[in-house]
Amino acid sequence: MTQAFLDMNGFRTLLAAQQGPNAQAIAAAQSRNAQLTKPQGALGRLEDLAIWYAGWRGTDKPTVTAPQIIVFAGNHGVAAQGVSAFPSDVTAQMVANFRNGGAAINQLASAFGARLDVHALSLETPTADFTKDAAMSEEMFVEALQVGWNAVDPVTDVLVTGEMGIGNTTSAAALALALFGGSAEDWTGRGTGVDDAGLINKTRVVAAGVARHAAKGDGLETLRRLGGRELAAMAGAIARARAENIPVILDGFICCAAAACLANTQPGILDHCVAGHQSAEGAHARLLHLLDKMPLLDLGLRLGEASGGALAIGVLKAATACLSDMATFAEAGVSAG
Amino acid sequence: MTQAFLDMNGFRTLLAAQQGPNAQAIAAAQSRNAQLTKPQGALGRLEDLAIWYAGWRGTDKPTVTAPQIIVFAGNHGVAAQGVSAFPSDVTAQMVANFRNGGAAINQLASAFGARLDVHALSLETPTADFTKDAAMSEEMFVEALQVGWNAVDPVTDVLVTGEMGIGNTTSAAALALALFGGSAEDWTGRGTGVDDAGLINKTRVVAAGVARHAAKGDGLETLRRLGGRELAAMAGAIARARAENIPVILDGFICCAAAACLANTQPGILDHCVAGHQSAEGAHARLLHLLDKMPLLDLGLRLGEASGGALAIGVLKAATACLSDMATFAEAGVSAG
Repeated sequence: MTQAFLDMNGFRTLLAAQQGPNAQAIAAAQSRNAQLTKPQGALGRLEDLAIWYAGWRGTDKPTVTAPQIIVFAGNHGVAAQGVSAFPSDVTAQMVANFRNGGAAINQLASAFGARLDVHALSLETPTADFTKDAAMSEEMFVEALQVGWNAVDPVTDVLVTGEMGIGNTTSAAALALALFGGSAEDWTGRGTGVDDAGLINKTRVVAAGVARHAAKGDGLETLRRLGGRELAAMAGAIARARAENIPVILDGFICCAAAACLANTQPGILDHCVAGHQSAEGAHARLLHLLDKMPLLDLGLRLGEASGGALAIGVLKAATACLSDMATFAEAGVSAG
Repeated sequence: MTQAFLDMNGFRTLLAAQQGPNAQAIAAAQSRNAQLTKPQGALGRLEDLAIWYAGWRGTDKPTVTAPQIIVFAGNHGVAAQGVSAFPSDVTAQMVANFRNGGAAINQLASAFGARLDVHALSLETPTADFTKDAAMSEEMFVEALQVGWNAVDPVTDVLVTGEMGIGNTTSAAALALALFGGSAEDWTGRGTGVDDAGLINKTRVVAAGVARHAAKGDGLETLRRLGGRELAAMAGAIARARAENIPVILDGFICCAAAACLANTQPGILDHCVAGHQSAEGAHARLLHLLDKMPLLDLGLRLGEASGGALAIGVLKAATACLSDMATFAEAGVSAG
């Protein structure tokens, strides 16, 4: 395959070249929506969601038949600082669990008819501890972006990206702090479930990483310094989806931190993304607010693995089914009020 | 078929005889949930939902394979007072639309693999205008309860009840005011979309109905006086589901107003029900709070037809799939942290 980008600047150029949605399809979908057999606006956010989706798919009667969920896994040098309730071995163990069909995301993918792909990124070689060095070299970072870029199947009609990586809420908190400011306490949560002492330690690690790396470049450079391979791969996949006009449902805090790095690099680059859910991981609500994304679901999930995004596939399928398959007032012979 | 109840007192006796969920199945599901390959509590409300469902189904590995959605339709004498933005003819027109597959609920039922049944209750004979008389005689009311009771298929494993009936948000507002107090303004919303003058008129009608009928009996008697056939049928179906250990996903304001009449008659009778969503119809949030039901979804729907409850079938399927089909830490060889 020809590589779409060779280095970070190539990736930046590619982000800058992306187009918006199809305005004609949006107008046609709005017009169709107004004629459907329901009071105006009675399907609430389902109507907005379906029209947004129609715009990216370029048709006023879109369908969702080929959802793709991709879980990227990576290991983090910063995990050695005791920031997680689980040991780093769990990343590879969970990848095996994904491959054997035993994890939550397997059941959710099956429940919503989605294809599930799992990419483990060099688990045996964790990224560098970002309190001491940049997490990734440029070469390592670009390679991870490319794994994500290449993982998206062009026939996909909605993409959900998720992750597994012991230590990666620490990375996500550091990214959010570096991009949006505030204090380390604002952005650091309990992740898989650290105790009070663990939370204090984790907050210290986040602050130390950001003190070393913040304001050293744009979102992409920040992602290289404070992120991880699975976060870079999610960013690559989200960018590829944009290039293919594939709408994306964002998952939780870590996915959104990776996405925020793209938005910081290229404003508007997340216009093809909706927030699938609001995670219970402390700072996700704040991050969604700053990204101007209103979550579709709020069910207290804090699992990652694309789980919240996967749940929202059901909402999107329902929304597009209503837009595309409902009868109009004229077709049904219903008085329009 | 032998009738399960012959009159209102028979129905009350039946409500009083219902049992709670299976405590052993709840304990087994809680134990299983604690061993699944995820941090404790990381699936948030999905975990509580699946355990609740397990309790009613009597197994720690429940599945949702036979959802039933029932839409009941009725016409309201009070519609003559100009309380709706749509004429009463629309009730029958929408029933035809349901039967032809053109309404929102048809698409939602299909999206979530649910059977959809539609029962039109004597549309040609609206209930009495409740500002002048009781909406229904005892005979008419018991007949509507029985339509609902008989509509539930015992093989169903989750039930969603919904409604269509021009004028029925007026009826629901009157029921809520009669049951819970407050002012008519607190409970009266725009329904299908009345304008400011329409809202003032509707509020007046609600207040007049309640002034005539409030405090004349329990929730069941209130439902007879201020309700409508489709509300009575929903109450009958919810009660039947309880008798069959079929969990129920409640829909919006009107469904919950009917359910509230049951709860007022027999405390705890809605323990087998969850709130599928919070409607944008003004007072639904308040009503859910008083029923102590936290909605699964909040997407601004205000359509009725069981639409919000149907959407939540997807959430329930996902929740039970995780509980029943995920691997345990031991099965997957994952370190439990």
